[in-house]
Amino acid sequence: MNLPVSEAALPTLTFTPGRWGDPDDPAVLSDGVRGALGFLGIDADAPEPVALADVRLPATRVDGAALAALRDVVGADHVAVDRETRIAHLRGFSTPDLLRLRAGDGSDAPDVVVAPESQEQVADLLAVCSAHGLVLSPYAGGTSVTGGLAVDRARPAVSLDLRRMTGLIAIDEVSQTASFAAGTRLPEAERLLSAEGFELGHYPQSYEGATVGGCAVTRSAGQSSSGHGRFDDMVVALTLATPVGTAEVGTAPKSAAGPDLRQLVLGSEGAFGVVTSVTVRVHPLPVVRRFSGWRFPDFASGSAAMRAIAQGSIRPTVIRLSDEAETGLNLANPSAAGAGAAAGGCLMVLGVEGDEDDVETRYSYLSRRLAESGGTDLGSEPGEHWREGRFRGPYLRDPLLDAGALVETLETVTFWSNLQALKDSVTDAVTGALAAQGTPAVVMCHISHVYPTGASLYFTVVAKALTEPVSQWAAAKQAANAAIRAAGASITHHHAVGIDHRAAYLDEIGGVQLAALQAVKRALDPEGLCNPGVLLP
Amino acid sequence: MNLPVSEAALPTLTFTPGRWGDPDDPAVLSDGVRGALGFLGIDADAPEPVALADVRLPATRVDGAALAALRDVVGADHVAVDRETRIAHLRGFSTPDLLRLRAGDGSDAPDVVVAPESQEQVADLLAVCSAHGLVLSPYAGGTSVTGGLAVDRARPAVSLDLRRMTGLIAIDEVSQTASFAAGTRLPEAERLLSAEGFELGHYPQSYEGATVGGCAVTRSAGQSSSGHGRFDDMVVALTLATPVGTAEVGTAPKSAAGPDLRQLVLGSEGAFGVVTSVTVRVHPLPVVRRFSGWRFPDFASGSAAMRAIAQGSIRPTVIRLSDEAETGLNLANPSAAGAGAAAGGCLMVLGVEGDEDDVETRYSYLSRRLAESGGTDLGSEPGEHWREGRFRGPYLRDPLLDAGALVETLETVTFWSNLQALKDSVTDAVTGALAAQGTPAVVMCHISHVYPTGASLYFTVVAKALTEPVSQWAAAKQAANAAIRAAGASITHHHAVGIDHRAAYLDEIGGVQLAALQAVKRALDPEGLCNPGVLLP
Repeated sequence: MNLPVSEAALPTLTFTPGRWGDPDDPAVLSDGVRGALGFLGIDADAPEPVALADVRLPATRVDGAALAALRDVVGADHVAVDRETRIAHLRGFSTPDLLRLRAGDGSDAPDVVVAPESQEQVADLLAVCSAHGLVLSPYAGGTSVTGGLAVDRARPAVSLDLRRMTGLIAIDEVSQTASFAAGTRLPEAERLLSAEGFELGHYPQSYEGATVGGCAVTRSAGQSSSGHGRFDDMVVALTLATPVGTAEVGTAPKSAAGPDLRQLVLGSEGAFGVVTSVTVRVHPLPVVRRFSGWRFPDFASGSAAMRAIAQGSIRPTVIRLSDEAETGLNLANPSAAGAGAAAGGCLMVLGVEGDEDDVETRYSYLSRRLAESGGTDLGSEPGEHWREGRFRGPYLRDPLLDAGALVETLETVTFWSNLQALKDSVTDAVTGALAAQGTPAVVMCHISHVYPTGASLYFTVVAKALTEPVSQWAAAKQAANAAIRAAGASITHHHAVGIDHRAAYLDEIGGVQLAALQAVKRALDPEGLCNPGVLLP
Repeated sequence: MNLPVSEAALPTLTFTPGRWGDPDDPAVLSDGVRGALGFLGIDADAPEPVALADVRLPATRVDGAALAALRDVVGADHVAVDRETRIAHLRGFSTPDLLRLRAGDGSDAPDVVVAPESQEQVADLLAVCSAHGLVLSPYAGGTSVTGGLAVDRARPAVSLDLRRMTGLIAIDEVSQTASFAAGTRLPEAERLLSAEGFELGHYPQSYEGATVGGCAVTRSAGQSSSGHGRFDDMVVALTLATPVGTAEVGTAPKSAAGPDLRQLVLGSEGAFGVVTSVTVRVHPLPVVRRFSGWRFPDFASGSAAMRAIAQGSIRPTVIRLSDEAETGLNLANPSAAGAGAAAGGCLMVLGVEGDEDDVETRYSYLSRRLAESGGTDLGSEPGEHWREGRFRGPYLRDPLLDAGALVETLETVTFWSNLQALKDSVTDAVTGALAAQGTPAVVMCHISHVYPTGASLYFTVVAKALTEPVSQWAAAKQAANAAIRAAGASITHHHAVGIDHRAAYLDEIGGVQLAALQAVKRALDPEGLCNPGVLLP
């Protein structure tokens, strides 16, 4: 039975920079989760976080002349050096980011926060940075989990807050493209599009905070990637403001006119300049949806079934598979997390959205294929549960940290033939690194993005937090990175490189490709003003 | 009714470098085509081509020391400076290329032809070029129609013939990927894959001559692009030998680890180095096919129907639409070309290939949509006719040139909302430029590659050849390029840039993007050894 999707595009959850969810209405751990924590020896709450007023912040190093020049561009109201604003632009959303803030460490804070309202102001700010010896780091959603906002503070650092650059610039209903200012948050983009009868359909777990520009420069992937593609698939054009001038990148949907330079800007993480607007592919708002849950005996049979779908011509909008551990903890349904999945095995969620004929045609074909592959149809309820709770998983992180747990995620991607070996190797590496510190861990995994030739793996790790949880996790992350690279997989499927993945990234691309990227960096940003240290050394 | 496709992957036409088809069995113009030529005032055969023995060739400028060094790398049998070999590596397949050869102009010939057998030999040859002041131009299929093989002869030039580097290096049946040596011709690639139960499914009109490496560096698009994607969609990894070292590009199907550098090598046309191997996505050999013809009242209604399909979730393997002029001349069925399409309007070809369930599901959905869009189902015959003759169209060019016609093609791509205006503008520009020279022209057009946001346009132009046909066409091509750029479209959808499109390409990308590309060129090829003048100035 197809259900209507009129409200699908518009989740109404709360976004608070620096933590998931509304601090006034925190997520609560279920008894099931509390019980699971007990198994890991997590029996004492974490120390109370340092109050924001007591966070240790370095003095601002921007002098009066530079401040005046910044104010000349954007107006005095949009240049801030106060504690609250600087802390609000400090780092991102990774667990180490939160742990360091909880410990009162504000050492990475930008010196000044500047909020332009136009591409012209961004270009002018680049000139001010050059004239006054400042570096500049774009800030939009603030949801980086890889240190993408950890400004290299060798020179005074400007956090370029893009959140005044928002809105739908143009829509082409025939070509089904829409241009957005880079600072437009995804829920706002969907609201603006739905008024015109369209949807972007990009739903990463950071949906509430993430922006169009941020998704572009980090190669974001959303929960509907099977149907609508990754964000880098959606982008047809971008405007990039660099210290040497502004480029309009992307002339046509596809072209043989040289290298596809959109793909050089996508994933550039602010290292080549500031993306100020993005034109994306959109599609008509879906009319109906059909979501369901499927049980597979184990991860191997479930991932083989996903592979058969990903290698076929008819694709769902959403397909994801939890491994046995994640299925057992029922993480696909955060509101019931820990309650367990009665029948064991692995839970798959299948979702198809579109018009009636399209959904009927695709769903019936896909369900035939899943049944042929050994899947048991669990009906619509598990699929609808996942759909309803799909942005709430990360809300559990803050209460888990409060409860004395160390909880973090990591992800990678490889070819199908390497997937099981990669999963085993990363699980062993993380488990081993934490066990070596006396903290047994639960490592759960799901596949949420599939391609004809491979798939991503997304791991969630929970262990008891030690008194130095940042270094505790660093050892586990280091082991995971080494396992990923030893397996020949990519260091990140959709979290990007930032600073945290940089060493593994350089190992992944090698010297010749690094030379090419550094040459581009020098050509477009000869003084190294743009996000120094992020992506490239 | 679904037909089997057991023989689909293996056309058996003849490939002769420098002309389409077998010179011993030339294509013959039908009475219909001869009649059409009469309408254009084409009433006298072209002058007899200059015999190959009389082609004017510059002396070889490679000295004995350089020749010895080249021979040291590949062996004496694989270094050639004779007339026949040099002429066989002269330019490509464009009409101006053929006309200049017919006129006896061999001025662009490489000084020496060298055929390595391995990636290591390619790397060694790059070192020899550096040591002896030679430049190097990769040669594989020889099917460039944009001057991609027109070596800049400021320095002595090596034509690097890659046709000994052939074969299937590895196949991963689980991930559905296959690695080929770059010089592997497409029919050979399909033959090797079909023995393993797989198909690549890349069928450009240059299929018989084109190679895997050539398709990669020129961003080729094939007739099944709707189902299997462009060649740049198929590539998951490449090996690039550059003067500063060799890069293995591509770690995973998709990744957020920085810019997608595969997309920097794809379309680089040999300017950054030599692609020596390519790993591509493959798929199981299709079991059945269903091809059909559809009539639409006009180009506007036909292209709107294509757009609806391209913007949906369920795609055909092949979809193409001839405009009224091309439908009238029946170019979609070369063996009957000129016979005319009885009922007028525009002919669309729809093709779906896969297994039984997949073909049945997609074909029935797609035919419902085409009927809803105003299409008349003409049954399987027009589709099967197109399929049978699909590589034969270009075979008509040589007899047309013999008959005194000037015939050439050009192509572009834009967003859907701009498509009709672009078609009109290019048609007017070409028609006008030829009429101004006293030669009325027939300009035909088809859409053969569609995307959610836009489509390509492929034009075929026929007029009476003047005594200086190269400059006659140059004026028309110049007008077309100007019209394409004025319309904001890309200068090429799948023919690439070469030398012929370079000026328009630089206009298309602008100064900042050019600076980025030149920086990459300088970093990877600091002495400018690799295909100088192609793609970049």
